[in-house]
Amino acid sequence: MEEGQINNLSLKDDEEDIVDPWNVASKSETGIDYEKLIKRFGSQKIDEALIERFEKVTGRKAHHLLRRGIFFSHRDLHTILNHYESGKKFYLYTGRGPSSESMHIGHIIPFMFTKWLQDVFKVPLVIQLTDDEKALWRDIKVEDARKMAFNNAKDIIAAGFDPANTFIFNDLDFIGKCPAFYQNMVRIQKCVTFNQAKGIFGFGESDVIGKISFPSIEAAPAFSTSFPFIFGDNVLPCLVPCAIDQDPYFRMTRDVAARLKLPKPALLHASFLPALQGAQHKMSSSDPNASIFLNDTPKQIKNKINKYAFSGGQPTIEEHRQKGGNTQVDISYQYLKFFLEDDERLAEVKKMYESGELLTGELKRIAIDTITPVIQQYQTRRAQVTDDVLRQFFELRKLEF
Amino acid sequence: MEEGQINNLSLKDDEEDIVDPWNVASKSETGIDYEKLIKRFGSQKIDEALIERFEKVTGRKAHHLLRRGIFFSHRDLHTILNHYESGKKFYLYTGRGPSSESMHIGHIIPFMFTKWLQDVFKVPLVIQLTDDEKALWRDIKVEDARKMAFNNAKDIIAAGFDPANTFIFNDLDFIGKCPAFYQNMVRIQKCVTFNQAKGIFGFGESDVIGKISFPSIEAAPAFSTSFPFIFGDNVLPCLVPCAIDQDPYFRMTRDVAARLKLPKPALLHASFLPALQGAQHKMSSSDPNASIFLNDTPKQIKNKINKYAFSGGQPTIEEHRQKGGNTQVDISYQYLKFFLEDDERLAEVKKMYESGELLTGELKRIAIDTITPVIQQYQTRRAQVTDDVLRQFFELRKLEF
Repeated sequence: MEEGQINNLSLKDDEEDIVDPWNVASKSETGIDYEKLIKRFGSQKIDEALIERFEKVTGRKAHHLLRRGIFFSHRDLHTILNHYESGKKFYLYTGRGPSSESMHIGHIIPFMFTKWLQDVFKVPLVIQLTDDEKALWRDIKVEDARKMAFNNAKDIIAAGFDPANTFIFNDLDFIGKCPAFYQNMVRIQKCVTFNQAKGIFGFGESDVIGKISFPSIEAAPAFSTSFPFIFGDNVLPCLVPCAIDQDPYFRMTRDVAARLKLPKPALLHASFLPALQGAQHKMSSSDPNASIFLNDTPKQIKNKINKYAFSGGQPTIEEHRQKGGNTQVDISYQYLKFFLEDDERLAEVKKMYESGELLTGELKRIAIDTITPVIQQYQTRRAQVTDDVLRQFFELRKLEF
Repeated sequence: MEEGQINNLSLKDDEEDIVDPWNVASKSETGIDYEKLIKRFGSQKIDEALIERFEKVTGRKAHHLLRRGIFFSHRDLHTILNHYESGKKFYLYTGRGPSSESMHIGHIIPFMFTKWLQDVFKVPLVIQLTDDEKALWRDIKVEDARKMAFNNAKDIIAAGFDPANTFIFNDLDFIGKCPAFYQNMVRIQKCVTFNQAKGIFGFGESDVIGKISFPSIEAAPAFSTSFPFIFGDNVLPCLVPCAIDQDPYFRMTRDVAARLKLPKPALLHASFLPALQGAQHKMSSSDPNASIFLNDTPKQIKNKINKYAFSGGQPTIEEHRQKGGNTQVDISYQYLKFFLEDDERLAEVKKMYESGELLTGELKRIAIDTITPVIQQYQTRRAQVTDDVLRQFFELRKLEF
């Protein structure tokens, strides 16, 4: 789950948004056109009917990230809901390509949402850290990639996970500890040709051989048989909450599942948290000024939003009062959609900003006051994640379910 | 270490011998032109001077397979001998692509020679069974490939190995038990592009992605750091006795070693034991009439040699007495080169056959009388290889050295 470099892509006007596991970019200041992406990828939109169905089956109000279309697309969520409704078990699988930099608020969103899903469904969760991918794609040594994975795992745990039902693993260690996982890798590798991998991922002849077989490694956790210590002989389907750029891996995995006579993974696709500078790019650790990090101080958060958050406001107060602000491109407002849980308050802010009643500085203040306590609470949890806690999550063991 | 199907290649007159990890064939009735192969592969001939050097350093008469040019080519054997002479340690690495059929006498030759090398140098040995390769290349399920590996391991152990200094592993289980091994796989995969793998192994775009990254798996055991439970932190060079068709893997491994700043594996290349029908093909398990199996009875051995062993004799006794037989193409004589240890007796047989004094039937009798007791002794050892013995060899542990 490799993240692209910001600003390494310049799109021409006639080009579509770029969304693949290594690059995400749009030429539009409203960001990626997610409706178009659903058509291109052949996934399904999460519509009102599905959200209602979700609420009926789970007996819970849908998460604001679902209600607001931030998780906007899916594959086979209906199947998982039917499965759950009939009293059967499934599990959650998500992951991350670790990085040396601190994780930013965009990284933690899918994990917070996954934690919520886990609480709603009471299901086990496996989290893959693809340190092998980082070693293969970047100029990073195997031993350094492993360290990054362990550091990032602490950041992820602080989203609130419980070792009783959550297993976290880094490939560079785990693959050497679980023969069933490697055996599934081989089964998967046998189903996919170079040509197919080229078609799905855009691999070329000058790519190293490790990249070419890597997709089998992100696919394997989608099969419960890869984790016999958790699931025993049970063959369970899984639901994968992930950013939309990871979908190519799971399109492949779903094809392979059919050939291996295993359940296809279901998917929930998230859109990207935009960079401070605007929605043309997603937030990226490699540009500190584009990102709010999970270890930023309240002062840093305040300064970054005030200084860098792209504004949808008008050039002068007079013009702003008259025409109002544009919430479609305003980054502070976009962040509120991710972090302000209160629907009424969000609607009120939107109305006030678009009417010109609320000035850009005031909107930024609201964003700062919303995001800062979320990060502070996160930091409190993060301080409690010791090496001992980390070890509990990485231990091969049964999970509650 | 996949073995090609016999007769699946028909070479045109203007084509060279085919020797790659999956296919071996020659259009000549004297078989592969090994002198040409040395030039094509860029390896070194094992000459008289090297054999003398070997005998001086080890204080042992060279094995008849070395003296007779059956192990005919090498890479860096001088380096290993210098290393050994200065009192430093190395290890041996060899392997096999397991098959469902019984192993034949051609398969056991390199293991018998390896056992001899191990006795001479008093070094540890690792033996890789590439059951993952079989699952990837053939229509064989992962679980069946594993079983083949365990069965073949018993056949290999019966060559006389000692669990005190020999570790045997099958990839489909071992890779899931040794993180250091997988980490080395990733390091190797990072050094080889698809283009390079294509150039070395002839991979195409329709090959499955598991094949394309497989070479890293045959390369990894050539680095002592892949086995920390055996070698601890010691970085030792290795010597790989193998059939010449495996050389492409180790040409690649040697290039990678230089980039990883690890010792390049040294190599000893064997020629092939010819099929009963003639030296155009190597002996192959897939054709029972072309092979003498390790579980054949004395009667089967006798019948096969009498019925199928290609003769270098003349059409009539009169013509044979007059012109003599051709030992270059006579398969019974070729087998004697592999199995009759007594140099004087072999020279005598050669002289008598070439002079016409010895008839084909008589030569076959000598071959039968030479091979049968070798196989009977082998079978006695094989009967003692229980599941318990097998487990000892597969256990991850320190080895004596």
